[in-house]
Amino acid sequence: MADTGGRRLTHVTEAGAVRMVDVGEKPATRREATATGRLRAGREALNLIREGTAPKGDVLAAARIAAILAAKRTADWIPLCHPLPLSGTDVAIAVGEDAVDVTVTVRTTGPTGVEMEALTAVAAGLLTVYDMLKAVDRGMVLGEIRLLQKSGGRSGRYRRQDS
Amino acid sequence: MADTGGRRLTHVTEAGAVRMVDVGEKPATRREATATGRLRAGREALNLIREGTAPKGDVLAAARIAAILAAKRTADWIPLCHPLPLSGTDVAIAVGEDAVDVTVTVRTTGPTGVEMEALTAVAAGLLTVYDMLKAVDRGMVLGEIRLLQKSGGRSGRYRRQDS
Amino acid sequence: MADTGGRRLTHVTEAGAVRMVDVGEKPATRREATATGRLRAGREALNLIREGTAPKGDVLAAARIAAILAAKRTADWIPLCHPLPLSGTDVAIAVGEDAVDVTVTVRTTGPTGVEMEALTAVAAGLLTVYDMLKAVDRGMVLGEIRLLQKSGGRSGRYRRQDS
Amino acid sequence: MADTGGRRLTHVTEAGAVRMVDVGEKPATRREATATGRLRAGREALNLIREGTAPKGDVLAAARIAAILAAKRTADWIPLCHPLPLSGTDVAIAVGEDAVDVTVTVRTTGPTGVEMEALTAVAAGLLTVYDMLKAVDRGMVLGEIRLLQKSGGRSGRYRRQDS
Amino acid sequence: MADTGGRRLTHVTEAGAVRMVDVGEKPATRREATATGRLRAGREALNLIREGTAPKGDVLAAARIAAILAAKRTADWIPLCHPLPLSGTDVAIAVGEDAVDVTVTVRTTGPTGVEMEALTAVAAGLLTVYDMLKAVDRGMVLGEIRLLQKSGGRSGRYRRQDS
Amino acid sequence: MADTGGRRLTHVTEAGAVRMVDVGEKPATRREATATGRLRAGREALNLIREGTAPKGDVLAAARIAAILAAKRTADWIPLCHPLPLSGTDVAIAVGEDAVDVTVTVRTTGPTGVEMEALTAVAAGLLTVYDMLKAVDRGMVLGEIRLLQKSGGRSGRYRRQDS
Repeated sequence: MADTGGRRLTHVTEAGAVRMVDVGEKPATRREATATGRLRAGREALNLIREGTAPKGDVLAAARIAAILAAKRTADWIPLCHPLPLSGTDVAIAVGEDAVDVTVTVRTTGPTGVEMEALTAVAAGLLTVYDMLKAVDRGMVLGEIRLLQKSGGRSGRYRRQDS
Repeated sequence: MADTGGRRLTHVTEAGAVRMVDVGEKPATRREATATGRLRAGREALNLIREGTAPKGDVLAAARIAAILAAKRTADWIPLCHPLPLSGTDVAIAVGEDAVDVTVTVRTTGPTGVEMEALTAVAAGLLTVYDMLKAVDRGMVLGEIRLLQKSGGRSGRYRRQDS
Repeated sequence: MADTGGRRLTHVTEAGAVRMVDVGEKPATRREATATGRLRAGREALNLIREGTAPKGDVLAAARIAAILAAKRTADWIPLCHPLPLSGTDVAIAVGEDAVDVTVTVRTTGPTGVEMEALTAVAAGLLTVYDMLKAVDRGMVLGEIRLLQKSGGRSGRYRRQDS
Repeated sequence: MADTGGRRLTHVTEAGAVRMVDVGEKPATRREATATGRLRAGREALNLIREGTAPKGDVLAAARIAAILAAKRTADWIPLCHPLPLSGTDVAIAVGEDAVDVTVTVRTTGPTGVEMEALTAVAAGLLTVYDMLKAVDRGMVLGEIRLLQKSGGRSGRYRRQDS
Repeated sequence: MADTGGRRLTHVTEAGAVRMVDVGEKPATRREATATGRLRAGREALNLIREGTAPKGDVLAAARIAAILAAKRTADWIPLCHPLPLSGTDVAIAVGEDAVDVTVTVRTTGPTGVEMEALTAVAAGLLTVYDMLKAVDRGMVLGEIRLLQKSGGRSGRYRRQDS
Repeated sequence: MADTGGRRLTHVTEAGAVRMVDVGEKPATRREATATGRLRAGREALNLIREGTAPKGDVLAAARIAAILAAKRTADWIPLCHPLPLSGTDVAIAVGEDAVDVTVTVRTTGPTGVEMEALTAVAAGLLTVYDMLKAVDRGMVLGEIRLLQKSGGRSGRYRRQDS
């Protein structure tokens, strides 16, 4: 669990105003982050993209592309994120019996990490699958969106324990 | 559960190609959708925005604004979504002991619904809170993002049972 | 001066949270707004675009186009603005001895006005002229950005007195 | 005043065509710029955000966030601006008796300065406050938008004298 | 050939300034436009997406999605275009022996046509295929981008003769 | 012609999924690309921008600015393109008797080339001219969009032979 003794929110000044933290003194290093998330859906809906009447190619491609575009534009979605020139993005999608898992790895060489880019890409990918299935199943739930690993930068390597 | 007998994915042609479905024959009616989602975080991180060292005003305002902006630009994030001129958006954020709940209601007068706009706004709001807390707690998980209710249009009123 | 007795900010809930006001019940009517603003600059800088070494065509065209693009994307720049499908935009630029005036008229058929679109377009036009002159004159000041007139909608016609 | 003897507009070719100047030979250095501007409004309107019926938190937060987002996307607003990965942005807002002042400092490590980013952020912040007050006071005027200081790069430090 | 006797450019005032023409008096009607274009490439490059080592699914899906996204954002790319809420978009891609053809049909219910949306979508789709093949074949040429048909609005139905 | 023996599409994984290739290991070097393209139009339409009733200034300026803006936002148009901070962009437009030629040179210091930026800018410039002439001539065709030269990076200098 988080130890917050004496910590402050870095995006907020002492007076409580939001800011975009200055990362100008931090060196540009190779950084990478992987996030994942899951869309739970009914079996019938998932059949439509797994083996069903419509070829899954375009459906999953749409989700992959939405994830990549969202990773590139994360600083547009998330107000206090720094704009970063991404050097690469990989998206893996697994269609199971009652869920679709979207996992995204983002890389950059920059002064700050790409954790938000990976998470935002996962959200966009899952929402895109949801969009294509929503006429069939309205009970779907997006969840378990979380950071799996992160490397580069001062805070070193992080690897999630419970995944 | 979904009954998919004979159904097809509306965003995909018979040949499996994605498309933006034509809604031009559907009348423009008043439509509304409400979605919600939750960010689970450690108590210490949440204390920082609830009663802690930094006033919560700007933090929650940032999440509300991120949600509103995302609702307006949903057709940019989700490739096959129709662009819709939203007529209103409300965002409610509740900070609990171990979670932050973001609930968004979106309204339009248009030929298709605003379910995706509400869900996308919830995701953007939660990601923005995550962004501000991530220096303190890396174990956070976004989830339970789902449609609560929807009205207007041919398919009538939907209200989630399990919420 | 404004009489605010009992008034509230329409973009803010009673609890103080920002929102995008619902305009869904308001009828779509023809609306128009004109705003203006001024960039004060040194004579030498203005000579460069008025009669000087560089033809003014592209410089003023750049400002006009920046204004038109900004009008179209106002809902992106101003968080609580409603997205509106503009039906037309005119930009007039006058280069004087010590100032450039940018005046923009925006029109729509919609449920809410285009005052913010006209003002945002004026700001973008002035900033674009500033950008092109800034290597020559750093003392420039943008100002006097204000609404000149507005028509359509419930609140009727407004015409500025002091202009 | 500007001495323009023999100067040319850097954004315009000899034939008068606009261009995005090549800064590829300039070294990436730490740069910073601060700009400010003022929204003049009636006392009653300002009371609403200073001590009035609505808490000012979200109103000023909306302006701060609009300013930060605009700084990040300046190259979208201003046609000939170079895209720059900003390293930090601070926004200060002061609500006086008859005016709101927005002051923005932007930082980058790059081959060109962030003067336009600071000015564009100020304009977006002021326009956002205007948007929230416009139902109460239509006579508001935005102005005095100007560069306060600038450092980094070949042209060295600039500090405005008359502020 | 065009008969231009006495005609003027609608996007330009008599004084030669660009403008966004006012379409506010034109009724909103159902409109449709189809455009097409061709990427000429070497046989080997095309083999890679037709029957080659990489499945073509994602490659063509990427082009289709790029086309759909570009159609939606045409008013962002083309300065004087009106923003239009598209009601539908279909993209067909045919991979031949020495060329890829992208054909896009766009529909709206609005006061002005979607010719530019269809053409912009075709360009984006072709550029996306080019992007994926460019490591293999640098000699590719995009061309023959043209309107095939258009319907709705005052000017009635247009159907290209030479296609 | 392309020799594709054993080559693969770099934007596609072995399993056929699109990706944004990782360029993080490639050094940032000075890179430049020039692309060109042509809009064929009727003589009468071209007269309107060459010597006709409307001054050509703004029309060609609009095309130049559209090209510059598109170059900056290429990573938004083309899903798998890397975002790159452009260091400069030049646009040349030549109006002939039956065609308009748009030629764009883009420069960056980065880990990957700007070929797509130059081509995308050409397409946007041509589409903008088309937009302004389309009321006069519907038979116009965009074409011959191709890379003229490219330098920088591992693959060295490329210069088109047939131009």
